[in-house]
Amino acid sequence: MFKIKFLPYNLEVTTLPGETIIDTAMRYGIHINASCGGAGVCNKCKIIIEEGKVKGEIIENNFYKACATFPLSDLVVRIPIESYIEKRATFLKPKKRPAFLSKEIKKIPDSPFKKLYFKLPLPTIEENFSDWTRIKYALEKEKILNPEVNINIFKKLPHILREKEFEVTLNLYYDPRKDRYYLIDIESGDKTSYNLGVAIDLGTTTLQLELIDLNTGETLAFTSDYNPQISYGEDVISRIEFAKRKDGLKILASKVREKIVNLIEEMLREAQKNLEDINLISLAGNTVMSHLFLELEPKYLREYPYVPVATEFPLIFAKDLELPLKETTLIQLAPCKASYVGGDIVAGVVASRMAEEEPLTLFIDLGTNGEIVLGNKEFLMCAACSAGPAFEGGGIKNGIRAVSGAIEVVNIDPVSFEPMILTIEKKPPKGICGSGIVSLLANLFKVGLIDRSGKFVRDTKHPRLREGEDGWEYVVVWKENSATGEDIVFTENDIENVIRAKGAIFAGCQVLLESIGLSFEDVERIYLAGTFGNYIDLEEAIIIGLLPDIPREKFFFLGNTSLEGAKLALSYKEILLKMEKVVNMMTNIELSTYPKYMEYYMATLFLPHTNEDLFPSVKNLKI
Amino acid sequence: MFKIKFLPYNLEVTTLPGETIIDTAMRYGIHINASCGGAGVCNKCKIIIEEGKVKGEIIENNFYKACATFPLSDLVVRIPIESYIEKRATFLKPKKRPAFLSKEIKKIPDSPFKKLYFKLPLPTIEENFSDWTRIKYALEKEKILNPEVNINIFKKLPHILREKEFEVTLNLYYDPRKDRYYLIDIESGDKTSYNLGVAIDLGTTTLQLELIDLNTGETLAFTSDYNPQISYGEDVISRIEFAKRKDGLKILASKVREKIVNLIEEMLREAQKNLEDINLISLAGNTVMSHLFLELEPKYLREYPYVPVATEFPLIFAKDLELPLKETTLIQLAPCKASYVGGDIVAGVVASRMAEEEPLTLFIDLGTNGEIVLGNKEFLMCAACSAGPAFEGGGIKNGIRAVSGAIEVVNIDPVSFEPMILTIEKKPPKGICGSGIVSLLANLFKVGLIDRSGKFVRDTKHPRLREGEDGWEYVVVWKENSATGEDIVFTENDIENVIRAKGAIFAGCQVLLESIGLSFEDVERIYLAGTFGNYIDLEEAIIIGLLPDIPREKFFFLGNTSLEGAKLALSYKEILLKMEKVVNMMTNIELSTYPKYMEYYMATLFLPHTNEDLFPSVKNLKI
Repeated sequence: MFKIKFLPYNLEVTTLPGETIIDTAMRYGIHINASCGGAGVCNKCKIIIEEGKVKGEIIENNFYKACATFPLSDLVVRIPIESYIEKRATFLKPKKRPAFLSKEIKKIPDSPFKKLYFKLPLPTIEENFSDWTRIKYALEKEKILNPEVNINIFKKLPHILREKEFEVTLNLYYDPRKDRYYLIDIESGDKTSYNLGVAIDLGTTTLQLELIDLNTGETLAFTSDYNPQISYGEDVISRIEFAKRKDGLKILASKVREKIVNLIEEMLREAQKNLEDINLISLAGNTVMSHLFLELEPKYLREYPYVPVATEFPLIFAKDLELPLKETTLIQLAPCKASYVGGDIVAGVVASRMAEEEPLTLFIDLGTNGEIVLGNKEFLMCAACSAGPAFEGGGIKNGIRAVSGAIEVVNIDPVSFEPMILTIEKKPPKGICGSGIVSLLANLFKVGLIDRSGKFVRDTKHPRLREGEDGWEYVVVWKENSATGEDIVFTENDIENVIRAKGAIFAGCQVLLESIGLSFEDVERIYLAGTFGNYIDLEEAIIIGLLPDIPREKFFFLGNTSLEGAKLALSYKEILLKMEKVVNMMTNIELSTYPKYMEYYMATLFLPHTNEDLFPSVKNLKI
Repeated sequence: MFKIKFLPYNLEVTTLPGETIIDTAMRYGIHINASCGGAGVCNKCKIIIEEGKVKGEIIENNFYKACATFPLSDLVVRIPIESYIEKRATFLKPKKRPAFLSKEIKKIPDSPFKKLYFKLPLPTIEENFSDWTRIKYALEKEKILNPEVNINIFKKLPHILREKEFEVTLNLYYDPRKDRYYLIDIESGDKTSYNLGVAIDLGTTTLQLELIDLNTGETLAFTSDYNPQISYGEDVISRIEFAKRKDGLKILASKVREKIVNLIEEMLREAQKNLEDINLISLAGNTVMSHLFLELEPKYLREYPYVPVATEFPLIFAKDLELPLKETTLIQLAPCKASYVGGDIVAGVVASRMAEEEPLTLFIDLGTNGEIVLGNKEFLMCAACSAGPAFEGGGIKNGIRAVSGAIEVVNIDPVSFEPMILTIEKKPPKGICGSGIVSLLANLFKVGLIDRSGKFVRDTKHPRLREGEDGWEYVVVWKENSATGEDIVFTENDIENVIRAKGAIFAGCQVLLESIGLSFEDVERIYLAGTFGNYIDLEEAIIIGLLPDIPREKFFFLGNTSLEGAKLALSYKEILLKMEKVVNMMTNIELSTYPKYMEYYMATLFLPHTNEDLFPSVKNLKI
């Protein structure tokens, strides 16, 4: 890490490994012109290296391209006059994670799936009880009483026992919900070291998987990919609709199962491990995704009064789902609370530990459903906010998912109204993803291009502000710099959709708080979950009124807590029970039937809010 | 029932419904010549009806054929002079069954498989918990907590619930060993009346099945047939050998499964019921049969130190065994004690209730293995006597199983040495089955044709006594009267085999008694189990020293207790647990390693025994 002093602001900041100079500047809110998202093609992000060594691309004279220049020492960097603006910069703190999550990972794992090695006493005429009884006696000494067993194990039992003179490895699964052991398999000799698990975040859009060594808790590989069900509907509602077609449900189930198996195989190749060593798969997904994965009828999830088939799931074998894995590979799913408060949230709450601690915590998963949970170890209230897909780029004219080339962060110069953009993987811009949308809306509002109602200030004269075919819009990227060959714009309709989405979440939080007679001031911690939640800029989220204007140190970015919870359930045998307890602790509030919800919601449809007093720091933010 | 007075004996006896006059005479040990087994072809069983009405066949003058004449009123019957012998007849008491067995059947059944009908409350927005939760709540009210469920039920759950407005029938199985309920299936509407079970005695030779209404306990149909594994070996040892061949075990398992399914289908046709209404199948079989049915390796059952794969069996679904029944049909097997004390005996002990009562009881299953159990509610000792197949006709020159045409009862005239025989179904004689063998041996001994060592008395001059190709033999049926066209003989070798068989059982009983410091005098009841046990003549069995010479009122014929136990396990949910308790109560004595067994055994190889004082009533039986 190096220090960079940016001139003329005279601000000293710290770099992160691998950052270009434009990354560092963006992270600290220091404006440098950038139209191509960091792809290195617009040649606008000129900087002068006044001191220090860099590795980079020179445009002309001693101008470097900020998007293609890496520091090799501490630097003094001057931003040339065309980007120089006197009043600048909200200085953001680097995003943070609560420390305890990583502490948890370091605990010695105690997986529900264990392999135990035994050297059993050989049968004698005095002790000629059955092979199975011999195993039961050995397990009794380990305090494992009356394990469940399937008749198929008996078929191989005598052969396995005698293969290596009664030296065997027993594969045992412990279900904490039943306080019961299952003998899943038996192997000859000592096979204890082959014990793998897979944690899966079964997301509506994205599948994220980790391959875990169940003995050590170590992550051996990670991968992620789209949920292939996307081809049959982008959101849960359209997938429920698709499932109504002939074989629709079957198709949805088999597509996601197939993809999961492919991703597992990919991780196994990477880690050089074998499929037959995968003993346990732990999934966490929302209620619809859980239903579709299990091929359970999702129809009634969306029909009043929104009844799931099940919110808890029995132990499942790979063969029950016809997965082309080892037949006895076990599959456990995080339990769900209700139709729109799913196992992803339950897993998240468990991963966050909020239900085991004193501080009143507001857990927000900023996805399409916008699930929120409020509580601590005494109680948990939850709700699904139906935020809509705006934060995943849905319903936004040039909105896209967080893919390569998506604009993920925007800065607008308050004088020139010129944007500085960065795209994912620094590819020429294709569209705007969730974090970019929040960033863009916050900036448009901050520099005064839109008013509190989210309308463009019509008398602003600027080439980027215009009336397009869908009404008023701001041109984020001119077609010359876009990957699509079209202007990338942000319309008043888009703004309205984003305001509705952020309003739904904010009002949902208010209702949860009100339902127990509290307000945001009482909240001691806000946990932001989800990948999207991890990329948004806290200040910008507060500026648009998505998150409450409370002391910033109360916010924690937790990342993908659904995956984290699924992973914990692989490594610690009590987790599934904890999840069940969380479900039982939760009181679900159906916002649609909550009397004052609509009133709260209507009040949020301003920037940041109808009641400006709720956002004092935004009120004072006059540029 | 009529009275018949037999002249010249002046003995009045009572007929049973359907009996011919020769049947009645044989039952009371009254000799009438009969060479064709009752087939009506030898014309030797001439009788004179002196009083009363009959329906029958006249041979000549006023002689009737006793084997083809039925009483229509009380009779006076004279046996003509050619059969008349002054000193005659051990008068046998009709065979008896302990009364409590039929009492048990009359109790209201409380099957482990129950169908419960529910009219569930419809979901509302206030109570929109999942379909599965709704079911769990309904069951909770019936004190059924946390039933086990398979993910496949969830697939149909929402549809079944909504088919008849949340009126459903839940199919539940209760496993008393785990004190746990399983939700096996769910049906729409009230389907409680369709609830069938099948009880199976999985015999080495014979399969006996009953179709039971699980709601009422009523037997709807009965059938039996050979165990088709016979084609691959008559006894358990030869089947274990066959199982060692390539696919041998698979063949044995599939043959018996196939036959069972055929027999079930036959019963269903007879009772006009449907396959899908069979919910529970309860089997009891010896340890080898249980292994072969489940396709478990039987090899080690016969190899020192005789270790079974398992002696208790988990719950099995029809699909686990690839049985072409309803996939969710459950299969439960009676637990076994050891390699040669199987589930048939355990089921028998439970059916007999001996382990719940005070009297010291000796339970004897007179099959090939000759399993014996001694005890009461305080303790149970058991042993397998390896009696060999003699009592099933095996190892006997003209021995056959108890099939149509088998000689099942023999009387030998003490003066003429002519036999009176009856065959099963009164068909021309084919050979001698177990009860016939016991009867024949007892009679040969009684009339002095053989001595105490089982050797023919060589100086007897009689055409039926001769030296054949296999040594000395007695001609039971001349070839003119046999179905085979060959003489049916009983050789000294045969006698030796029978003596060994009866000796093994008697010595086994002695060892069991001695092991706890008791003798036959202390035994309060002897329970004779097994179909063979049901057909032997008590006095004759005592004469040959198979059964001890103790007061006759202590003997009880229980019939097929294996089937009875399997049936009880269908009708009463605690039976499987009782069976497990019996197994745990049992102490198995390996006779082959018991120090004094061989000594006891050697002493039994006389008729009735080396020590004549053990059989006082036989000692006094001088004709």
